[in-house]
Amino acid sequence: MAHPVSPLAPKSFPDLAAVAGVRFATAEAGIKYKNRTDVLLAEMDAGTTVAGVLTRSKCPSAAVDWCRDRLPGGKARALLVNSGNANAFTGQKGRTSAAASAAYVAEALNCSTDEVFLASTGVIGEPLDPLRFAGVTHDMAGRLAEGSWIDAAKAIMTTDTFPKLAGTSVEIGGTTISIVGIAKGSGMIAPDMATMLSFVFTDAPIEATALKALLQPLVDRSFNAVTVDSDTSTSDTCLVFATGKAAIEPITDAFDPRAATFAEGLGKVLFDLAMQHVRDGEGATKFVAVRVEGAQSDASAGRVARAIANSPLVKTAIAGEDANWGRVVMAVGKAGEPADRDKLSIWFGDNRVAHEGERDPGYDEAAASAYMKRDELELRVELGLGEGTATVYTCDLTHGYIDINGSYRS
Amino acid sequence: MAHPVSPLAPKSFPDLAAVAGVRFATAEAGIKYKNRTDVLLAEMDAGTTVAGVLTRSKCPSAAVDWCRDRLPGGKARALLVNSGNANAFTGQKGRTSAAASAAYVAEALNCSTDEVFLASTGVIGEPLDPLRFAGVTHDMAGRLAEGSWIDAAKAIMTTDTFPKLAGTSVEIGGTTISIVGIAKGSGMIAPDMATMLSFVFTDAPIEATALKALLQPLVDRSFNAVTVDSDTSTSDTCLVFATGKAAIEPITDAFDPRAATFAEGLGKVLFDLAMQHVRDGEGATKFVAVRVEGAQSDASAGRVARAIANSPLVKTAIAGEDANWGRVVMAVGKAGEPADRDKLSIWFGDNRVAHEGERDPGYDEAAASAYMKRDELELRVELGLGEGTATVYTCDLTHGYIDINGSYRS
Repeated sequence: MAHPVSPLAPKSFPDLAAVAGVRFATAEAGIKYKNRTDVLLAEMDAGTTVAGVLTRSKCPSAAVDWCRDRLPGGKARALLVNSGNANAFTGQKGRTSAAASAAYVAEALNCSTDEVFLASTGVIGEPLDPLRFAGVTHDMAGRLAEGSWIDAAKAIMTTDTFPKLAGTSVEIGGTTISIVGIAKGSGMIAPDMATMLSFVFTDAPIEATALKALLQPLVDRSFNAVTVDSDTSTSDTCLVFATGKAAIEPITDAFDPRAATFAEGLGKVLFDLAMQHVRDGEGATKFVAVRVEGAQSDASAGRVARAIANSPLVKTAIAGEDANWGRVVMAVGKAGEPADRDKLSIWFGDNRVAHEGERDPGYDEAAASAYMKRDELELRVELGLGEGTATVYTCDLTHGYIDINGSYRS
Repeated sequence: MAHPVSPLAPKSFPDLAAVAGVRFATAEAGIKYKNRTDVLLAEMDAGTTVAGVLTRSKCPSAAVDWCRDRLPGGKARALLVNSGNANAFTGQKGRTSAAASAAYVAEALNCSTDEVFLASTGVIGEPLDPLRFAGVTHDMAGRLAEGSWIDAAKAIMTTDTFPKLAGTSVEIGGTTISIVGIAKGSGMIAPDMATMLSFVFTDAPIEATALKALLQPLVDRSFNAVTVDSDTSTSDTCLVFATGKAAIEPITDAFDPRAATFAEGLGKVLFDLAMQHVRDGEGATKFVAVRVEGAQSDASAGRVARAIANSPLVKTAIAGEDANWGRVVMAVGKAGEPADRDKLSIWFGDNRVAHEGERDPGYDEAAASAYMKRDELELRVELGLGEGTATVYTCDLTHGYIDINGSYRS
């Protein structure tokens, strides 16, 4: 399980202050891992609102089902997250486990189970014994504090090689609003979904319906623009908790101008976390932005960008530092979207390698190859058909991915 | 380039007789490879009909465009195939190269260029110098013979680790009809397409329209049921040539009962070749049949089967001989097709590992793990929704795939 830290990991972690109204604790419940924390409990003050985006998988985890049933209520008092077991595809046992876990938390924090949100990540198909939580919930409840966000992020890691956290603040009417998020995930990550697990906390006072309206488009531009391996988790969860402790009038409407200011900060945190997912993509050695322009629509551009970003042949070429733009042509061709071979141009960074359906007349193999040696790459495709654009973020496909996934469960 | 022969390769090659009306020759044109044949020329007798299925890529090769324009004519006298260069994304140069190559052949064999079919496979984006063919066409024309099918198959290999050939015969009205095919391809192979390159020769007398009508459904059940890496080539081509030399009355209609007999043999050859593609999947160590049953329709079953067969996480688990059925659950969930988690059952061979939405009560880890050590595996998923079924054939994802594709072009 001990994989080396991704070479694309951030060089340092941000020093993030507490968010008013949020306290948390972590524990070692021994669910799967030994000698590390694997449970996170967060308590939010009464009055906290919540909005979320959950996996579209047809085989969602019990925790996802639990949250989906409770998000319409819009109120949250607690979040319980465990790593090591996804509580997915566990049938009635899984539903019972989720309900029991929420009950332990509700009892310890004296709140309703409907205000307890759950997330589980790890192996699929193994029953998750709720007694693991019974043993630690009361203890954690006694230790809740405005603790270290890094510790919170560490407790929810699985194959992640570094904890993921991000924060920012925005000014609304002279008052500073804090937004802090943590996330986990490095494999089974694909676009068109919420994400792996991601939890954002803010002291903004904002109604749940307004928060939900702001959240979806921001998720589309962050987590849904990311693909590591095209595989979509049963457990993808993004939850945003707003404690309302900041001293401004509550935002009740997504069209309130202050909502736009808040959304800017929230979007920044979500995008930062999503990019950290790519940087911790299993086995990743290159961070790659795939930009498609000139498509018939943004949606079409997105599908072409994903065909490129998910292509094993494109991803292995990048791993080999090979400026193999022919494979980009292949991926454009297979996307099933409107494309005209003879209008197609391709850039690797500033190097235009293909133009109007053939190798660029000024193609410089040495320059293109030199560019491919970088850690961070941009592949840009101009389809020449319309105004549609999209950017998808991915990583390369290396021996490391095979190492990690050829032996994960065993 | 010299990769070890796939462990899944056939233990021996079939000894296939000539097909009346077909002669061929191979040559070393030095297009990319050194010290090996890289061009195949086949001449068919006058009266030969042809039908084909070509890539649906929006960025097809010049050779594919050439064939697409000439297939409606239904007549063939020659086939020219090269390996080492795909003549794809080569713009006007590519079109000129294809036309010139066909002209050399037409001149050497004294036929119309519209009866010359072309296929090219190899690197994308490199101009293909037609003078390479000028140098060898006349020489090959002088050496045309009922030669060794293995030699023909070897000349068209790229990253293939073994030549692919298959043959059968059917009896129609007491007359034996021969059907022999060769193929190449081990990467950039995905379903929903014709295939890599595949050429089938028969002495059956059958009109081109009838041949075409028989071919598409047979391709759907063979090449289109195969995926190695989800990547679709710019050059996928399947051509069937029928010389008409067998002494039976011509088949003019796909509904002729004799057409069904012929189609049975043709289907056998196409399926055999398609399975050889899987067995030579880049880096493959396991042959995997993914069978989906109980879907709402056959098409839905096919999409679920492909989601499983293309999942990097499923494929790496198989490489690691890990009975990780949770990843099969994930792939079913992400397919976007109707599925009900709580009706889902999964088998690895005869081992039912999941049943009605959770781990099978009789799950035996040792038995499932022992099964995964086999070379040939069947993953079966029962969705419990309807009567739709599909089978897709794939291989595992190993370090070998990364080795081959992280350095192919360089």
